[in-house]
This record gives sequence, C-alpha cells and structure tokens, in this order.
Amino acid sequence: MNSQWQRFRNRLHEIVFESDTLAGRAFDVTLLFLIVLSVLAVILESIPSLTKPYGPLFDRIEWVFTILFTLEYVLRIISIRQPLRYVFSFFGLVDLLAILPSYLGLFLFGAHELAAVRILRLLRIFRILKLGEYTEAASVLAYSLRESRAKITVFFVAIFTLVITLGAMMYVVEGHANGFQSIPLSIYWAVITITTVGYGDIVPSTPMGKFIATIIMLLGYVIIAVPTGIVAVSLTNANAGRKQEISTQACPNCSRQGHDPDAVHCKYCGAKL
Amino acid sequence: MNSQWQRFRNRLHEIVFESDTLAGRAFDVTLLFLIVLSVLAVILESIPSLTKPYGPLFDRIEWVFTILFTLEYVLRIISIRQPLRYVFSFFGLVDLLAILPSYLGLFLFGAHELAAVRILRLLRIFRILKLGEYTEAASVLAYSLRESRAKITVFFVAIFTLVITLGAMMYVVEGHANGFQSIPLSIYWAVITITTVGYGDIVPSTPMGKFIATIIMLLGYVIIAVPTGIVAVSLTNANAGRKQEISTQACPNCSRQGHDPDAVHCKYCGAKL
Amino acid sequence: MNSQWQRFRNRLHEIVFESDTLAGRAFDVTLLFLIVLSVLAVILESIPSLTKPYGPLFDRIEWVFTILFTLEYVLRIISIRQPLRYVFSFFGLVDLLAILPSYLGLFLFGAHELAAVRILRLLRIFRILKLGEYTEAASVLAYSLRESRAKITVFFVAIFTLVITLGAMMYVVEGHANGFQSIPLSIYWAVITITTVGYGDIVPSTPMGKFIATIIMLLGYVIIAVPTGIVAVSLTNANAGRKQEISTQACPNCSRQGHDPDAVHCKYCGAKL
Amino acid sequence: MNSQWQRFRNRLHEIVFESDTLAGRAFDVTLLFLIVLSVLAVILESIPSLTKPYGPLFDRIEWVFTILFTLEYVLRIISIRQPLRYVFSFFGLVDLLAILPSYLGLFLFGAHELAAVRILRLLRIFRILKLGEYTEAASVLAYSLRESRAKITVFFVAIFTLVITLGAMMYVVEGHANGFQSIPLSIYWAVITITTVGYGDIVPSTPMGKFIATIIMLLGYVIIAVPTGIVAVSLTNANAGRKQEISTQACPNCSRQGHDPDAVHCKYCGAKL
Repeated sequence: MNSQWQRFRNRLHEIVFESDTLAGRAFDVTLLFLIVLSVLAVILESIPSLTKPYGPLFDRIEWVFTILFTLEYVLRIISIRQPLRYVFSFFGLVDLLAILPSYLGLFLFGAHELAAVRILRLLRIFRILKLGEYTEAASVLAYSLRESRAKITVFFVAIFTLVITLGAMMYVVEGHANGFQSIPLSIYWAVITITTVGYGDIVPSTPMGKFIATIIMLLGYVIIAVPTGIVAVSLTNANAGRKQEISTQACPNCSRQGHDPDAVHCKYCGAKL
Repeated sequence: MNSQWQRFRNRLHEIVFESDTLAGRAFDVTLLFLIVLSVLAVILESIPSLTKPYGPLFDRIEWVFTILFTLEYVLRIISIRQPLRYVFSFFGLVDLLAILPSYLGLFLFGAHELAAVRILRLLRIFRILKLGEYTEAASVLAYSLRESRAKITVFFVAIFTLVITLGAMMYVVEGHANGFQSIPLSIYWAVITITTVGYGDIVPSTPMGKFIATIIMLLGYVIIAVPTGIVAVSLTNANAGRKQEISTQACPNCSRQGHDPDAVHCKYCGAKL
Repeated sequence: MNSQWQRFRNRLHEIVFESDTLAGRAFDVTLLFLIVLSVLAVILESIPSLTKPYGPLFDRIEWVFTILFTLEYVLRIISIRQPLRYVFSFFGLVDLLAILPSYLGLFLFGAHELAAVRILRLLRIFRILKLGEYTEAASVLAYSLRESRAKITVFFVAIFTLVITLGAMMYVVEGHANGFQSIPLSIYWAVITITTVGYGDIVPSTPMGKFIATIIMLLGYVIIAVPTGIVAVSLTNANAGRKQEISTQACPNCSRQGHDPDAVHCKYCGAKL
Repeated sequence: MNSQWQRFRNRLHEIVFESDTLAGRAFDVTLLFLIVLSVLAVILESIPSLTKPYGPLFDRIEWVFTILFTLEYVLRIISIRQPLRYVFSFFGLVDLLAILPSYLGLFLFGAHELAAVRILRLLRIFRILKLGEYTEAASVLAYSLRESRAKITVFFVAIFTLVITLGAMMYVVEGHANGFQSIPLSIYWAVITITTVGYGDIVPSTPMGKFIATIIMLLGYVIIAVPTGIVAVSLTNANAGRKQEISTQACPNCSRQGHDPDAVHCKYCGAKL
C-alpha cells in the first residue's frame, strides 16, 4: 500500500506542481482563473456601493475561494517530498498569505481585505506560460537588478542620509506652524520632493523653505538619473553577456575556459585549442 | 465599360492612397489641412465661452467636415481592390472613427466630442512627408519598442501585481475615513504614487500610511529606472544593428572576416574580396 | 581719417566682441557682473514687500542698467563690419531683448518685468570661460540633442496626437461638472498626467475617469523612457565618435580615408597604407 | 615619557581611526550603533505627541549623546598627528556638525533639532564594512558623477537661465492675482514644473498661462532625459574602464596586442607573453 500511496503522491505532484501533462496544465489554468476571480471579488467587495446590497453574497464567495485555496495548499504539502522547503519558499509563503487573511478576518477587523495579496500568486503565470521569450526577459531583468544590487544599496544609503538631513533642515526652517510638524513628517516631505512625486499636501511657505526646496528639486535631477543609469548599464551588460558568446571551448591541455571566440591557442598554457 | 471603370478606379487609387503623383500629393496635403482644421473646430467648440454665441455655426462646420470625410471614406473603399483589408487596417479604423462620432452624436449625447479623435489621422503625415530621416527615426523607435515588448510585458505584469498588493495594503492601513474608500481607489492612489505623478487628491494621513508611502516612493526610484533602461538598451541595439551591418564576407586569401560593408579589398592582406 | 576710424573700430571690436586681450577680458567680466546685478534688481523689484518702499529706487537702477546695455548694444553695432549679421544672430537678439522691455515698459504695462529675460545673456559666460572642459561638454550635449532631432520630433508628434486624443476622451468621460470644462483644459490635464508633473488642480472624479487616468499613468512609464533612451544613446554615440579614433591615415594610392586603426591595407584599393 | 605618550597615541589612533584590529572594529560598530540611536532620539523628540510627556527625558538623552560624541571628537584630535587636516576633512566637519547643534541649542532656538544632521556620520559605514563589492560600487558611482561634472555644470547653467526666463515670463502672463506674486515665486513654480515635482500649490489660471505651462512640461521631457543620459553614459564608461583593463602587453613573437590581463600565452600564436 505504501507504494500505491507513493504512486498517488507522484501523480498528485505531477498535477499540482508541474504543468507538462494535460492534467497539470488544466489544474494550473483553472487555478489562475480562480485567483483572478477571487482577487476581483475582494476588490469589488471593498466598493461601498456594492458592499451594502451584496455583503453576505461576497462573504460566501470569499469562503468558497478560501476553502478551495486551503484544499490546494494541503494538496501541495501532501504531494511534495520535503513539505518544509515548499512552505518556506517564495510561492509557499504567498500561497499561505492567500488563505491566512480570511481566517484572521474571523478575529481581526480589516485583516480580511488583505486577501487581495493573493494577486501575488498570479506571478505563477510565468511558470505556466513557459514562453521562452517572457522567461528570458524576466531573467534578464532579474539578473540586471541583481547585478546592480551593490550600486543600488549604496544609492539608497546615500538617499537615506540625504532625506533625513534635508528633513531635519526643513523642520527647523519651516517649523511647526507651516505643516512641518515633526522630523518624520519633514522626511516624508523630503522623499515626496526628491522622488518628484509632489503630492502637495505639505509645501514650504517661507521664502527660505522655498529656496531650499528649489535646490532639492534641482538636485533631484541628478539623483533620479543615478538608478536609471545603473539599471540601463546592467541591462546592457546582461544583454551583452548573453550575446558576447565567449567561446565554450575548454583547453584540451589545462581545461580552462573563457577563451575569446577568435583564440587559436589557450591563453593560459599555450596549447592549441 | 468594365475596363473604363477599372481605369477610373486605378486613377482614383493613385490620388487617394498614393502620394507620388502631383494629384495624389495635392489630395494628401489638402486632407491634412482639413484634418487640422476639423480638429481645431472640435476643440474650440468645447470652450464654454465660444459654444454659446457660435454653437450653431460650429454645428454646421462640423457637418461640413463630416460629409467631406465620409465622402473620402467612400472614395477609399471604392478605389481599393480589397475594401475589407483597408476597413480593418489601422488607418481604416482611424478613418471610420473620425466620422462615426458625428453620426453617433445624433443619438448619443457626448459622442460628438469624440470627433477630436480624428487627430489620429494626422499620423498619416509621416507617409506624406516621406522624409528619410523621420521615417527612419520612427522605424528605429518602433523597432526598439517592439524588441523590448517581452521585457515591458514582464515589467507591467510585475507592476500590476505590485499596485494591487500595495493598494489593498493601504486600504487596510488608511481605511475608509482617510479617503482610501475602496481597493480600486487605493490602487488608483498606488499608481499615482509609483509613477511619481502625485496629484495629491488622495494622500495618506496616518503615520503608518505615510511610512508605507515613503517606502513605495523610494521603491519607485528603481521601478522607473527599469523601463528607461529597457528602452535605452533596445535603442542602442536598434542603432547598432543599423550601423554595424558588418559584411559577412571572408577574405578569399587569408579568410579573415569583419570587413566593412563597403570594403573592396581585405584590410589585412590586401586581396580582392 | 578713414583709416583712423578703422583702427578705432578694430580696437573696439577686440574689446567688445573678443576676450583674448586684457581689455576685452575686463570688458566681458564687467558685463557679466552687470548682467547678474541687473537681473537680480529685476527679480527683487518684483517682490511686493520690496516694491513698496524701494519702488522709485528700483526704477532708477533699472534705467541705469538699460542705458548701460543700450550703450553696449550701440558699441557692438558700430564695431562690427556686418551689423545685420550680429543683430539677427542668437546673441544679437538676446541683447536686444535685454533692453527692449524697459523701453516698452514706458508704453505697455507689465512689459518691463520681462527684463528678467536678460539672464539669457549670461549664456555668454561659456565664451569667456573658454575652459576646454566646459566647451567640450556643451558641444557634446548640443551634438547629442541635434543628432536625436529626428527621433525627438517623431516622439513629439506622437505625444501631440496622444494628448489631444486622451484629452477629448476625458472631456467626454468626466465632463463639464468635474472640472474638465473644455477640450483644451482636458489636454492640459493629459499633459500634466503623462509628464508625471501631477499638479492635482484637475483630477478625475468618476470611476471611469480614474480608470483611464490609471492607464495613462502606466503608459507614461514607457513614454518617459523614450526620450531618455534617445538622449542616452546619442550621448553614447557622441562620446564614442570622439573616442573611436578612426585612423587619420589616408590611402597613399586612392587617398580615401576612414580606415580602421588596425588596417594594414587600404580597404578600397588594396594599396599598402 | 614622550615615547610612552606616542605609543598611547598610536594605539588610540588604531582604535579610533582604523578598523583592522578587534578593538578598532568594536569601537566603530559601537559608534555606528550610537549614531543611529542618537538620530532616532532627535527624530522621535520632534514628534509633538512624544515631546510633551517625555521632553525632559529626551533632553537628558540628547546630552548624553552630545557628551559621548564630544569625547570621541577630542580623542580623534588627540590621536592624530595632523589634527587640522582631520578637522577640515569631510568627516571632520561632519563630526563637528554632529555636536555643534546641541551646544548652539543652548543659545539659539531651533538649532538643536539640526542634530539630526549627525546621520551623515553614518556614511562612515562604508569604511567599516570594507566589503569590496560596496566600496567598488560607491567608487564607480562617485567616479561617474565626477567624470560627468563638466556636462552636469553646463546642464545646470542652462536650467538656471531657463527657469529664470520662464519664471519672469509667467510672472508677467499670470500676474499677482493668480498666485504668481513675485518673480522668485514664479521661478519656484518653474522649477516645480520642469522637474515634474508638481506640488500644485501654485498653478496657472489663465488660458495663456496654461498653454505656456503645457509647453514647459513637454519641454521637461527632453530636459529630464539629459542628466539621465549623462549619468548612464559615464556609468557605462566607468564600468568599461574597470572591466576592460586590457593588458598593454604585446606578444614577443607575433607582437599582436589586445590580450586579457590574466593571459600568460599569446592567444594568437601561443608564445609566452
């Protein structure tokens, strides 16, 4: 019976986790469809004019989805050999996040609406599509952002100290009376200004404050250019890296790789390639 | 008589669709002129201070343009061999869109103002100008956007899930009382914030909401860098692709490659290519 | 006497137009100093709290600068051999623009404040500095913008038709009551939104209007990436063009140029370089 | 005794300025920790709801930090051989700025809050981390900004004259009644608009003003592209410069160049380099 259980489990894994078989594909497409519908339900439920007349209906719909997703979650845990690795993987956590809010909503007011977070499950779409073009595009983008991680961290540390400094400065210059009620609020203003979002809910009133704001905005020109430059460069590299076509030849003598495509001899030991 | 009809039709096609002959060019220039005038009329008509005194005049002007453009539309359908291919082409649909609002305006209130959409017909200007420089620039831009289609799609799917997640989060954090009245409205806010538009019609009021907004804005720095990087890279490629065009010829003597397309002799050994 | 006049004129030209001699350099530095002071005076004069008590003083200061600049303008016209070419050059027009508002201010209310336009004369600073680094940087930037002229024109024609279309659409969707009072105003809104400026003076109120605005903002992501990409690419080219170091060798046989630095033979006729 | 003092001083220098020894590292980590805590205290102190009940407590905390940082400052001056070079270095000034506001706060109202500026000391984190990746990223970014200094200066001079011109123009067009109360305020508006911040605290009201604003915003498209392009290009160069490092060695046998820095043998003929 153990082996039968094993066979069942493998079959289940094929359906639930893979999308190569017809059943697996059908499962995935159905799932995506359900995710979109469930998110749509959560979003619509939040609209006041719909909540009132259809409140109880939305509640029932919500529970249907929650039970379906809970069932799916259990199936995933059962079918996999190392359940913990799935549970703590990105998609494992997202899957848990998709059902948790409904259960928490029983005890905590407002938690329920967080069910919209299950839209993140939609990211699974990339695995299902398996369209080479999109997978490659995603991996190039991910690679670029990863490659520029160090530069972006440095950039954010600099921005971080800058907005705190500017926030404190504006707090002193503008002061409580002009809406800059605390340093955290002034930092919030500095971020709004330097990212060029510019809500306008807090604006400088004093000439000195306006002068400083002008300087910050002009400074923002160069600042916003930095992350763009970083990403552009790493995207270029990611593309080039893919195109550079470093020869896949390994030296027959020292077996080291990384030779240029036009190399005739190994650049390390001199043996003929 | 059939052949005479055919002759007339070919002549008509030359005038209406082509712009190589003098008559065709005159037709196109007149058309562009009429398009600009008709759009100007629609725009001016919408200004309250002009609508009142000149309302009936604008109505009459509008019908003159509509009848002229309808006539032109009929001429196009008559003169072409496969009318359906024209009707469902980009410019065919735009041409229909340019006359439809006026007729719909007879039945539907407000439809008439959509006549401004006929400005899209102005895009025909590129065909008439036939200035190599502009055509090439347009094709390089179009090629770049097409080439980065996959990356941009991935980017938008990611943005899509991000703004829904952030919208739901802010709806829970800020709540009904602070202007975040529904999840769709919160998503609208998230888009306004992450694109750095920042109207300021909805802004976070709670400290927690402001903190999350700050994180989103800083995140927006990296996010806005991605499409810019994508387009910059594909523009570089489009340019390079156009300029490189390195000849695929190999020297018959030393068989080395990498010659410019205009090379006659091998630049390494001097042999005739 | 004619020759003496000629000598005087040449000497004057050296002082007024050139900055190689000590006198010429002193003239230019003094001029820059006066320009900054005069602009500062115009700017300060506009501040209400200063206009009242010091109004007459500012008036007198303004006339001193106007007379000085008029004198300078006359000197320039006298000292140059082809006065008309100077008058209609960029700096000639700017110099005229710097004195005209004061005289017009005698007849037209408000014209006087336009004197601030004389700040444009400050651009002359680049000629005086003659610092290679800055001149080169300016020429690289100018070259880049010039090189991408065609692409930017195409971009603006596309943006132009887009904002008119979107403006008309929003005018119909939102309508008079929600602040979208006319198509020109709606176009103004569309530009504010698509450029991510986002004043917030006009915002969509209806759900449909908000939905369209969301689409436009997300679209803006890709749109804002295009000019950045264009300029980045042409800057790269401008830089590369400067660095590429195409060999300056001309073929001794056919005397054609443009050979790669590693070329041994002329790629056109095969002669040894 | 002099030599003992010297030994003590060297030891102190090792602890206070360097972070290679265990003691030095412990000192630096403690310091960073204190900096974060002290800034947090200043920020929290500014929040009205916390100032009232905990005011005296915050005052005492603030003085503890000030005394600690003053002690550290004295130690730094004592331990270094050329105190003036430290005092006028970037970090020397930042360290002074970190303690000055507290002392000034005794005499000047508001000066005390500027203590938040001590967040700048956090930049010292880069020295402590000594993580190659981050140091390199920081140096690449710094190098890029330094390399594009000339271009960015030219850009800012152009922006500077542009916003003054546009500000004066809008002051005349919109005038006092519509919120454009002075030229400096109009320049402030021009900067808000051209950087796409768009607070919305000052907006054009007249049709002419809106038309000019539309032109400025569209112009902003190209303007914002320039610094981005500049930084992207110099980042590419900085990266390339760092990666190329193509060996300047020529093969002693075939004398061909272009070998990688890690090459031992000529990749063309196999001879030892």
